[in-house]
Amino acid sequence: MRVLSSVRHVAILGAGPAGLTAAIYAARALLAPVVFEKGVPGGQLNETDQIENWPGTGGPVSARDLMAALRRQAEELGTEIVAAEVTALEPGDATHRVVTTASSVEARTVIVCPGARPREIRVPGADRLKGRGVSYCATCDGYFFRDRPIVVLGAGDAALTEALFLTRFASRVAVVVRHPENDPRAVRASATVRRRAAENPKIEFLWNRSVEEIVGDASVTGLRLRRLDTGEIEEVPADGVFVSIGRDPQTDFLRGVLELEDGYIVTDERMRTSVAGVFAAGDGRLGARAYSQAIVAAGEGAVAALEAERYVLDELVGVAR
Amino acid sequence: MRVLSSVRHVAILGAGPAGLTAAIYAARALLAPVVFEKGVPGGQLNETDQIENWPGTGGPVSARDLMAALRRQAEELGTEIVAAEVTALEPGDATHRVVTTASSVEARTVIVCPGARPREIRVPGADRLKGRGVSYCATCDGYFFRDRPIVVLGAGDAALTEALFLTRFASRVAVVVRHPENDPRAVRASATVRRRAAENPKIEFLWNRSVEEIVGDASVTGLRLRRLDTGEIEEVPADGVFVSIGRDPQTDFLRGVLELEDGYIVTDERMRTSVAGVFAAGDGRLGARAYSQAIVAAGEGAVAALEAERYVLDELVGVAR
Repeated sequence: MRVLSSVRHVAILGAGPAGLTAAIYAARALLAPVVFEKGVPGGQLNETDQIENWPGTGGPVSARDLMAALRRQAEELGTEIVAAEVTALEPGDATHRVVTTASSVEARTVIVCPGARPREIRVPGADRLKGRGVSYCATCDGYFFRDRPIVVLGAGDAALTEALFLTRFASRVAVVVRHPENDPRAVRASATVRRRAAENPKIEFLWNRSVEEIVGDASVTGLRLRRLDTGEIEEVPADGVFVSIGRDPQTDFLRGVLELEDGYIVTDERMRTSVAGVFAAGDGRLGARAYSQAIVAAGEGAVAALEAERYVLDELVGVAR
Repeated sequence: MRVLSSVRHVAILGAGPAGLTAAIYAARALLAPVVFEKGVPGGQLNETDQIENWPGTGGPVSARDLMAALRRQAEELGTEIVAAEVTALEPGDATHRVVTTASSVEARTVIVCPGARPREIRVPGADRLKGRGVSYCATCDGYFFRDRPIVVLGAGDAALTEALFLTRFASRVAVVVRHPENDPRAVRASATVRRRAAENPKIEFLWNRSVEEIVGDASVTGLRLRRLDTGEIEEVPADGVFVSIGRDPQTDFLRGVLELEDGYIVTDERMRTSVAGVFAAGDGRLGARAYSQAIVAAGEGAVAALEAERYVLDELVGVAR
């Protein structure tokens, strides 16, 4: 068959751990992948300071350094990284069109790794102290707060589960809730989780309060809360603030294109989406939602790339002639 | 509830990429995991020389150094690694018993990461030149053989799929088959794969031959084959020999204990086996069979550990008091 040189074997959308690992695999299969990334390659890890649960580093490393190494590795093996935002994916029969702010490409296979962003809290101090006590990942950062007082912001199932998990480490976990205790909207968690949190002696609920400010110079030292009944301001000392108010998969451009659930991409165990030739990996994938871990995303990226390789193998053999 | 100090939260069987990554996650959740490993920690990667598709290394690294770093990381976070072979897993209600050649332990959760060993070819030179041209992984090592002649040993579906994949890299791929071309036992692959291999101009079948020796000093330079019709010995030049004659999941001790298929452990997407509280990850897991990649195993190890953490969360909260 005739092969148009402008048709790519593999286009990868997103340069977080999933996308860059997919790129390493696709590049080593000589598929010359192109990766589109609107921001800094690295995904959510760019929001992290130190990482010590990425296996193989031997100990804590800078998350940015790790992601820079991943990027270098992908590029040296033959990956092209294009700084552009993907605005549309238009599936076709033999190839799929990826439309970006820079250009459009046709690709035989597409690996979608859009990630999911934690919803951020918008109060003074939150941005400045992110990674310095303000965390959006209890699994990642709980370990750094052994025997120290922390605060959890959020009252959903995930927030209370994280609060329970954090009692493993912290001396005390205060959960700030916007509504009064007797308000049915106060806690949006299952009865079991709510009961376990209520019974845990390390957990204290601070009802009917809003967060005014996260306080600290080099790192978090406390929060200023407003009592919503009296308007009174109070200071709560804390070394860590864990924010758990939801996450948004970055999949708006995929609505009506791929099967989504709650905005997350539905795949089978082989990372195949509802469209043949389109694969998905990482935090934007429904199956990864419960974990949201870089190494999990990386493993999925490898699987997606291996499946994409196999998908195009027939044509590859033609290309190799 | 009363907690016996001798009961472990998490026992991990096997110290390959899956087991050690599970250990890193469990240790960071302060679960003080114990890992049992009969050989050198590192799993199949110990059989590998260089690795360049483990994301985050920035470039090619020694596979042994990488696994040593993984081990160090797990140990420094609080993992106990015990050099012992697991001879039995005896599931119970609240805890499961792990019987090893060194000792027995009770554990609330067990993460089974036994791996799968490639079947090795037993001819002179095969052992000595392993990692020096003799490879058991086309995905891992194909890239190192660009524009060089290679030989594939094996005639199953996996072997021919690997031969097709290797045409991406090699100047020429010879497939050695023990039976004559017209023997129905000659090729045990699907009609499609067989046809594609037969039609590929880079692939040559060497029918009705057995391997006598793999030849080379510092690295592979060729093979000595015996023509089974005439007994004649011939030399075939090759820089690489890819062996694909099957793999054996190391799960004998799990027969009758966990649901297996073809010897591989059956799990759901959350790495849960047929026994509550027992999880599995890595190359011994049915869902990973098609990939057999260290980074995929690592991602699964993280998922298994996160699921194990959640499984014991109720009790953990008790322990933390």
